[in-house]
Amino acid sequence: MPQPATQLTRELIEAARTRLAGKVHVTPVLNSATLDAQRGAQLFFKCENFQKGGAFKARGATNAVFALSEEQARCGVVTHSSGNHAAALARAARLRGIRAYVVMPDNTPQAKRAAVARYGAEITWCAPTLAAREETARAVLAATGATLVHPYDDLTVMAGQASCAVEFLQQVPGLDAILCPVGGGGLISGTAFAAKTLNPAIRIQGIEPAGADDAARSFREGRIVAGGTPHTIADGLRGQLGARPFAEIRRYVDDITTVSEADIVRAMREVWEVLKIVIEPSAAVPYAGLLGELPQALRGRRVGVILTGGNLDLERLPWGTG
Amino acid sequence: MPQPATQLTRELIEAARTRLAGKVHVTPVLNSATLDAQRGAQLFFKCENFQKGGAFKARGATNAVFALSEEQARCGVVTHSSGNHAAALARAARLRGIRAYVVMPDNTPQAKRAAVARYGAEITWCAPTLAAREETARAVLAATGATLVHPYDDLTVMAGQASCAVEFLQQVPGLDAILCPVGGGGLISGTAFAAKTLNPAIRIQGIEPAGADDAARSFREGRIVAGGTPHTIADGLRGQLGARPFAEIRRYVDDITTVSEADIVRAMREVWEVLKIVIEPSAAVPYAGLLGELPQALRGRRVGVILTGGNLDLERLPWGTG
Repeated sequence: MPQPATQLTRELIEAARTRLAGKVHVTPVLNSATLDAQRGAQLFFKCENFQKGGAFKARGATNAVFALSEEQARCGVVTHSSGNHAAALARAARLRGIRAYVVMPDNTPQAKRAAVARYGAEITWCAPTLAAREETARAVLAATGATLVHPYDDLTVMAGQASCAVEFLQQVPGLDAILCPVGGGGLISGTAFAAKTLNPAIRIQGIEPAGADDAARSFREGRIVAGGTPHTIADGLRGQLGARPFAEIRRYVDDITTVSEADIVRAMREVWEVLKIVIEPSAAVPYAGLLGELPQALRGRRVGVILTGGNLDLERLPWGTG
Repeated sequence: MPQPATQLTRELIEAARTRLAGKVHVTPVLNSATLDAQRGAQLFFKCENFQKGGAFKARGATNAVFALSEEQARCGVVTHSSGNHAAALARAARLRGIRAYVVMPDNTPQAKRAAVARYGAEITWCAPTLAAREETARAVLAATGATLVHPYDDLTVMAGQASCAVEFLQQVPGLDAILCPVGGGGLISGTAFAAKTLNPAIRIQGIEPAGADDAARSFREGRIVAGGTPHTIADGLRGQLGARPFAEIRRYVDDITTVSEADIVRAMREVWEVLKIVIEPSAAVPYAGLLGELPQALRGRRVGVILTGGNLDLERLPWGTG
């Protein structure tokens, strides 16, 4: 009998791609001569803000829900999430016809709350700390017998997120690098594993808000460093690095750098203004990493930028308005 | 010797399509299961906000600039415009390597001013009235010998705008209707002529802000009715209906209805939130026409909605922020 995988494999990712076909969007890639000229590289923007539910999280959550046995599925799924994973899980559960229980921090943006509610999940509120989220989720688990689908520290979720990079490399042959935001590490671990498997020479660069830099510090120190209280507008990147993602990140990611809050806001605005698309603050983080002087490794290169989502409160924009 | 055309012809539109190939984008068409369910029709959004310069105006202006003789081109082009046409003309002139002179009302949004300046046009400011625009443009014309490219009352411009509908019908076979905003009438006249030529059964519906309803009134009365002072957030639709567009509109447009300012804002917000794209207020006007009870003629049908542009000041959004 085969042992369950303890790290990402090609097989997990292939299984995810098969499971996801027709259930999530193949998202478009946009580019802009204006931004290329401003940044000094050929930029390709993978628009996961156009994904089902408005974020790449549909990939991992849908993979996890459809990987459940019939018996597991019967009791439903539960998660704790800052929003996009919760909405994605709620949508996937509805697609499979099973229950979803969601534990959400009470500072979740209104747009993300509404999405979770729209897909029919049962919501339990908690304080906005990892400890409160995990404790509340445990209580829900005990009461329901549902399966926990962790937002990122889960190989099936990571394999689902990896499908984005596989798709991206098919859409844009010859990418020299992919820039990816880092929160808990679910997206970048899948991205790095999938991309390096397909092209060992590709550069995978993680970008993190300086105000939530536990992954950058963990990467430098070679072990998971506890994050302090995150201070960033990028609400999707406030989670702490997971152990399973970190194992892949150490092997496959080339570097993790940080960006300031001011650059996140400037990047978000520039993407809205030039590409004419709505992205949330977390999604602006990798492009923010290109605003300063471009690192030699990226100059003039074909650089992929994953725009992770587009869910935010349009009444509360991070630049002066009115 | 052939007489110059006095109304739109298939030949003018075919010539425009040939001239524009490679100089403007084939813009994508988006749709959304969420919006279809909310509105009760199959909606197809033609995204001219992704057009060169962020608006459909690139089509007409580029056609006009490249239709000039060498001798005409030498003295450059001039226009008066609320912004998107001016930017489009400036870009087209730069593409051909000739001068562009632009007369702009001094209440033009900052984003549109910046675009015109970026493309290197010489700007002359004037008061925000049609009379002041036309008078200032005449003075510039007299001083430069440039050719006037009117933003809409010009067959070459109208033929360029018509290319959008031809493209749309190729991308979405079997459209039952196209909804189009009405300002001076350049887009809807081209749209109606082109679409009805290709499919006489298609419904062409104009939508206008109630606060700038000269086209709706003119359509009802069968003659051009002078507009009062326009009061609408849709800055691209404040112009007065042109004679050449009106001749086509009378023949080919099925109806022109109006929408409230509140519905324009609601429509704009809904498009941003659900489609995750940035559109300007004028571009939200046709979708605003779908917010009330859907007319029988559109219910359950395949309805094309032209999203005309995405240029606006992101600091000044028409909903409560901050």
